Amino acid sequence: MCENFQRIGAFKFRGAANAVFSLSDAAAARGVATHSSGNHAAALALAARLRGIPAHTVMPEDTVAIKVESVRRYGGRVVFCAPNHDARVATLAEVVAETGAEEIHPFADARVIAGQGTAALELIREVGALDALVAPISGGGLLAGSAIAATGLCPGIAIFGAEPEGADDAARSFASGQLEKNSRVDTICDGLRADLGAPNFAILKGLGTQILPVSDAEVLAALRLVYERLKIVIEPSCAAPLAAIRRHPGHFRGRRVGVILSGGNVDLAAIGRIWAGAV
Amino acid sequence: MCENFQRIGAFKFRGAANAVFSLSDAAAARGVATHSSGNHAAALALAARLRGIPAHTVMPEDTVAIKVESVRRYGGRVVFCAPNHDARVATLAEVVAETGAEEIHPFADARVIAGQGTAALELIREVGALDALVAPISGGGLLAGSAIAATGLCPGIAIFGAEPEGADDAARSFASGQLEKNSRVDTICDGLRADLGAPNFAILKGLGTQILPVSDAEVLAALRLVYERLKIVIEPSCAAPLAAIRRHPGHFRGRRVGVILSGGNVDLAAIGRIWAGAV
Repeated sequence: MCENFQRIGAFKFRGAANAVFSLSDAAAARGVATHSSGNHAAALALAARLRGIPAHTVMPEDTVAIKVESVRRYGGRVVFCAPNHDARVATLAEVVAETGAEEIHPFADARVIAGQGTAALELIREVGALDALVAPISGGGLLAGSAIAATGLCPGIAIFGAEPEGADDAARSFASGQLEKNSRVDTICDGLRADLGAPNFAILKGLGTQILPVSDAEVLAALRLVYERLKIVIEPSCAAPLAAIRRHPGHFRGRRVGVILSGGNVDLAAIGRIWAGAV
Repeated sequence: MCENFQRIGAFKFRGAANAVFSLSDAAAARGVATHSSGNHAAALALAARLRGIPAHTVMPEDTVAIKVESVRRYGGRVVFCAPNHDARVATLAEVVAETGAEEIHPFADARVIAGQGTAALELIREVGALDALVAPISGGGLLAGSAIAATGLCPGIAIFGAEPEGADDAARSFASGQLEKNSRVDTICDGLRADLGAPNFAILKGLGTQILPVSDAEVLAALRLVYERLKIVIEPSCAAPLAAIRRHPGHFRGRRVGVILSGGNVDLAAIGRIWAGAV
């Protein structure tokens, strides 16, 4: 499923749109808010504009300009704060108190999870029953939604989350049985650095998900393969599922495998340095 | 029309397949031959393999390894020669004399032109009538085939060839009314460096084609736009039509415009240096 071709260039628009269009008219009129600075912020701004309501995004002052612009391009309001987690949370609370806006969390939100699941839903409706489904895991919005949709349509389907070794909180959470956090993250997959959300973990455990670790080198090899053979532009995080399939072939050989390609919002200069061999 | 998703990664498979499958069984049994070293050679090797016949490709000894491999991967035979035009022609003549193989020229061949035209044919059948069609021009196989198909289906359609300023033989040929050659070529569009073919020029003149010049800087800006917005991998030559549309908007504003995206066989290291800002 090519979510790099999705609006805003990533699956995030699905969850944001479902959340925004799930609101009552009265709640919607007060707007929506988030403190994500990535694709979720742009997705929320676009979804809000489509419903004709305000979107407020809290961003650290040191956010790169391109991310600020992508929210403003869709008509979102950007509220800057000091570059630390506490300031983000406090500033978002102020914005919500002032405006009455509904906070839409990027992944620990049932409406967002349900929206992200529509990618797997559409994939299975289009290609028929699958034996296995692989998506990247970070906060777990995409994977939890995918797992709900896929197991609903294909009982017995195996659900796999591809996770960078350098941000392995999900693997450790599944091993210990309780929600673990990343103490440090070190991966090229800039979209897979968040900690797994609590509701996301609960859903994924309940549906028998397995976590497959991948190294950055494996991600880069898979990334190259996609550019060279599929001729599509994807971001490094998006290559994690293919890397997982190549590293753990025993789970997939001879089976019908669905892959969610999560997005294509790359920094061409950074990806260029990779192709040019400077990374 | 996304010919970067075509087999072998470029439109060239269409012409090669049409030529190979147009042969009588007796002629086909003797095989096919060419002295192209680019996408046409790989396309011809694949088409020949699909028909179960031999393909002989004459290549200069200094051909980059990746091009040799791409022909051999499809089962083609590679015959090396000295790295000059006369040696290529002489060696091809020897191969043809030895084997009885049919020479399939990469563009100055009616069967190849007809095959390349099926991209425009499929595009118009899929999206309906167009006011204008733009494709890159080099030898003129793609553009001549496109012009025949498009004017057949949409009488009055305007046909445009996008040509790099650094290999402007087509622009000069249309200006003088007679076939001109490139004395030197200097363009990033490595697929657009050939001289226009005689039958191709005759067809294009007869169908009222216009040539639109583009600079390498305009090609690179269009290339970046395609990667960033369409999220697809194309080669520099393939960006020439979009560059032409952006430079010459008066021909296209308010009209239904078809674009043939010719291929996606990039050297990722070279394209990486472009994105990284080293070019």
